[in-house]
Amino acid sequence: MIPTISSLQKRDLNHVWHPCSQMKDYEDFPPIVIKSGKGIYLYDENGKQYIDAISSWWVNLFGHANERISTALANQAFQLEHVIFANFTHEPGIFLAEKLVEVTPDGLTKVFFADNGSSAIEVALKMSFQYHMQKNKPQKKRFLALTDAYHGETLGALSVGGVGLYNEVFQPLLLDTVRAQGPDCFRCPFNERPDSCCTQCMSYVEEKFKTHHEELTAIIIEPLIQAAAGMKMYPPTYLKKLKELCLQYDVHLIADEVAVGFGRTGTMFACEQAGITPDFMCLSKGLTGGYLPLSAVLTTDDVYDAFYDDYETMKAFLHSHSYTGNPLACRVALEVLHIFEDEHYIDEIHVKSTYMKELASKRFDHHPYVGEYRQTGMVGAIELVKNKETKEPFPSGERIGYKIYQIALKKGLLLRPLGNILYFMPPYVITKEEIKMVIDTTNEAIEEYFEHDHACMKVHEYE
Amino acid sequence: MIPTISSLQKRDLNHVWHPCSQMKDYEDFPPIVIKSGKGIYLYDENGKQYIDAISSWWVNLFGHANERISTALANQAFQLEHVIFANFTHEPGIFLAEKLVEVTPDGLTKVFFADNGSSAIEVALKMSFQYHMQKNKPQKKRFLALTDAYHGETLGALSVGGVGLYNEVFQPLLLDTVRAQGPDCFRCPFNERPDSCCTQCMSYVEEKFKTHHEELTAIIIEPLIQAAAGMKMYPPTYLKKLKELCLQYDVHLIADEVAVGFGRTGTMFACEQAGITPDFMCLSKGLTGGYLPLSAVLTTDDVYDAFYDDYETMKAFLHSHSYTGNPLACRVALEVLHIFEDEHYIDEIHVKSTYMKELASKRFDHHPYVGEYRQTGMVGAIELVKNKETKEPFPSGERIGYKIYQIALKKGLLLRPLGNILYFMPPYVITKEEIKMVIDTTNEAIEEYFEHDHACMKVHEYE
Repeated sequence: MIPTISSLQKRDLNHVWHPCSQMKDYEDFPPIVIKSGKGIYLYDENGKQYIDAISSWWVNLFGHANERISTALANQAFQLEHVIFANFTHEPGIFLAEKLVEVTPDGLTKVFFADNGSSAIEVALKMSFQYHMQKNKPQKKRFLALTDAYHGETLGALSVGGVGLYNEVFQPLLLDTVRAQGPDCFRCPFNERPDSCCTQCMSYVEEKFKTHHEELTAIIIEPLIQAAAGMKMYPPTYLKKLKELCLQYDVHLIADEVAVGFGRTGTMFACEQAGITPDFMCLSKGLTGGYLPLSAVLTTDDVYDAFYDDYETMKAFLHSHSYTGNPLACRVALEVLHIFEDEHYIDEIHVKSTYMKELASKRFDHHPYVGEYRQTGMVGAIELVKNKETKEPFPSGERIGYKIYQIALKKGLLLRPLGNILYFMPPYVITKEEIKMVIDTTNEAIEEYFEHDHACMKVHEYE
Repeated sequence: MIPTISSLQKRDLNHVWHPCSQMKDYEDFPPIVIKSGKGIYLYDENGKQYIDAISSWWVNLFGHANERISTALANQAFQLEHVIFANFTHEPGIFLAEKLVEVTPDGLTKVFFADNGSSAIEVALKMSFQYHMQKNKPQKKRFLALTDAYHGETLGALSVGGVGLYNEVFQPLLLDTVRAQGPDCFRCPFNERPDSCCTQCMSYVEEKFKTHHEELTAIIIEPLIQAAAGMKMYPPTYLKKLKELCLQYDVHLIADEVAVGFGRTGTMFACEQAGITPDFMCLSKGLTGGYLPLSAVLTTDDVYDAFYDDYETMKAFLHSHSYTGNPLACRVALEVLHIFEDEHYIDEIHVKSTYMKELASKRFDHHPYVGEYRQTGMVGAIELVKNKETKEPFPSGERIGYKIYQIALKKGLLLRPLGNILYFMPPYVITKEEIKMVIDTTNEAIEEYFEHDHACMKVHEYE
C-alpha cells in the first residue's frame, strides 16, 4: 500500500538523505513532519501528538521547547553568539567548565570542548595516544574496546565500536583495535545474575590486558549500559574491577558517558555508581538537554601536565573545531546544570525510575515473548525473544522492532527500537501518569503485532 | 613580565583546556574574556573593542549578534528545538536542504547533515568508500589528497590532511593516504604566475592518478584556497583539470568547501569559478553564519542511488549523529541564505573585496618583508618573508606571526595568523572604512614588530 504523502514529506524526500536510514523504507513509511514540541510531546503537521519516549535519540532531558533553556539561549543569541575559543574565552564557557568539574567524579579537573559525541571520543583517543608518546611510550598505540560497544561514527570512533551493523563495511578504513568479549548479563556465559555475580566475565578483559598491555594506550567503555547494542546492562562492580586493571597495567580508562551521563542511569554519571574516576570522561547528548550539538572531554591534571610545556617542545594538543566552546551551546548546557540543581532532578529520577521499574516489570516479566525487562535509572529495555526458555532471538530479518515501532507511532508513541529490543528513555519531565501511558501503549503495540502481523507472517510461512 | 589577570581569566585557566593552544603560552598571554559582540566588533570584560578580522575562525558572515539571525534562532527555540532526524523531519531541515541544492552547483541534489566540518569530511570519505564497495569495486579503498591540505581533526579527516603540525604525531593512527604535491603559486616550481600559468603542477596529481587510480576511491581538495596551510591560493583551471582527471580515472571528487564556501572566494562556492560539480561538497563554518555547529554533505543522484535498495541488501548509509538535522541550526542556516538573497551579498562582496585588494596591495606589495599580498574574494593574505628576493621564510621558531598578532590585539585588531602568514577574512558586513582600519592597523603592527621586537631580537642574536 502506497501511503498518501503530504507536500512537505514530498519535498523532504526530494532532497534530504536521512541518517541511519535505508531511504527506500521511506517509500512505505514517509518521514513524519514535526512542527512543534512541548514537554514530552511532539506535534506533527496534522496536529497529531506523539510521546517522545526515547528523548529524540537520548538527548532530551527537560522536555521540548523548555521555557528556561529557550530563554537562556535567546538571551545569549543577542549578546554573543560565538567567538574563537583559542586565546579567547567567555563566561558561558568558563562557568560551564567549572560546573562540569564540580559535578563529575573527583580528579577530573580539565575540560576540552568539541561539537558532538564522535568528536569527543576522537579527542580522548588522540589525547591518550599523544600522552603516551610524550611520556616516551610510543609503543602504546592500540586501543582496547569491548564487543558490542558503540562510540560514534567518525573513523576513529567507529574503530573502537564493536557493532557490526555500523562498522563492518568500513573495516578496511579502521584501526586495528584489540577487542575483548564484553559483559552479557542476559545471556551470561557463566549463568550468573547481575545482582549477585562476581563478574567472572572480567577474565576476558583481563586476558587482553595481560597479552597486550605494553601496546595499549587506553580501554574505552560505555559505563553500565552498552546502549546501541540494545541497552545491554551490567553492574558497577565490572567498572570497579576494570579501573583496577587499568592502574595495574598502565592503561588509560576512557569512559564514554555520551549516552549514560546526566542522570540517565540514576546517578549524575554512571561512573559514580562504581566510585571510580576515569582518565577521560566523554560527554555530549544530554549535556545541552537535547538542544544543540556540544561535547566535552574531562580529564586529569596528570594528562593536562603531559602537554603543558614550552611552545618549542611541540607538545601542545593541536585539535580544534571551529565552534569549540560555542557560547550558545555552553549557555544552554549551563542552564541544564542549573535546572538539575534547582529542581533536584536526581531525586526526581529516583522516584520516577522506581515507579517505571515496578510497573514495567509487572507488565512484561511474564509476557511470553519478553526474554527480559531490564532497567537502569531512566533507561528501561524489553528484549523480545522467540523462545522465552532458550532466549532464542527473533531473526533480524523479521524486523520485529521496526514493525512494533510503526504500530506504536500510529498510537502516538515514539519508540524507535534497536533490533528486537524496545526501550524507554523518556525526558525526565515525564509524569507517573505518562510513564503508565508509555508502558501501556508499548504493551498494546506488542500485543497487536503478535495478534495480527506476526500471526499473518506465520500463516504465510506455512502457505 | 607576568601580566595581571582578572578573576574570570583565572577561573578560565583553572579548568578550560583551549583548542589548538599550548596552554603554557597563556601564562604570559591569558585568554581575553569576551562579554559581547556586535557586527564586526567583539567587546572584552574591560569594555575594550576588537575588530574580528578573521570572523572567529572563518565562520562569521553577517556580524556578531546579528538581529535577523538571533531572532530566527530565538523563535525556533520556543517552537521546536530538536527532534530525532531518522524517520522524522521538520520545516527548517526541509527548506534548508532545498535551498542548499538550489545554490550549489547543478547535479548536487541530496543533502546529508552532520554537526561539524570534520564530521562532514568523514561522511564524504565513508560514502565514497561504501559507494565503490556497493559498485563491486572493493579495491577502491584509498584516498588521494594534496600536500598542505587541511580537512579537520577526527582521525579520518586528519588522515587526508597534509599539514604536519596537526597530524605528524598521530601518524600511527592514520590511514595510508596517497599524497600528491599540491599547487604552490607563491613559490611555483615552474616559475609561472597564477593568472597566466597552464597549471603544469597538475602533472604531480596526474602521476598519482596513473599509478593508483585502481585503488583510489576519491581525491579530496580545498577548492581555490588551502586555508590552514597559510591561505595558499591557486587558480580555477586547476580544479577544472582535476575534475577531468576524476572522470577519466573513475575517482570521486570531494570538494571541501568548509572554509571557502558561502561567498568567501567571491562566488557563492569556489567550485563555481571552475564551472565544476564535485561528487561530494562538504559545507560547514559559514553555513550558520558563525552561530552554531552544523555541516552538510551534498551529493549526486548517482551516489544516492547506489545506497537505495531493499533493507535486506544492507546497503543503507548507517551514519548518524544525535543532533543530525538540528532544527535550531537548520533555522539559523536558512536565515543566512535568506540574507544572502535579500541583501544581494555576492554583489557586496565583489565591491568590498575589490576595494580591499587595491588598498592592501598598495600598502604591502612593496614592503621589504612582505613576499606577497594575495587575495581571493574576501580572503586576503600577507606572506612575511625574511628575504623578498629569495622568498626565504622567517624561521618558525621566531613565531613572528604570533608576535604581530599580540601587537595587533593591543591595538584592538584580532588577526590570529598562520605561522608567517597574516590574513584578513572579515565578516561581510565590514564597511570600506573598517577595511581601511584593518589594513592600516595590520601595517602598524608589522612596522612596530620590525622596528622594536625584531630589532631587539637581532641584537640578542649577536650579543
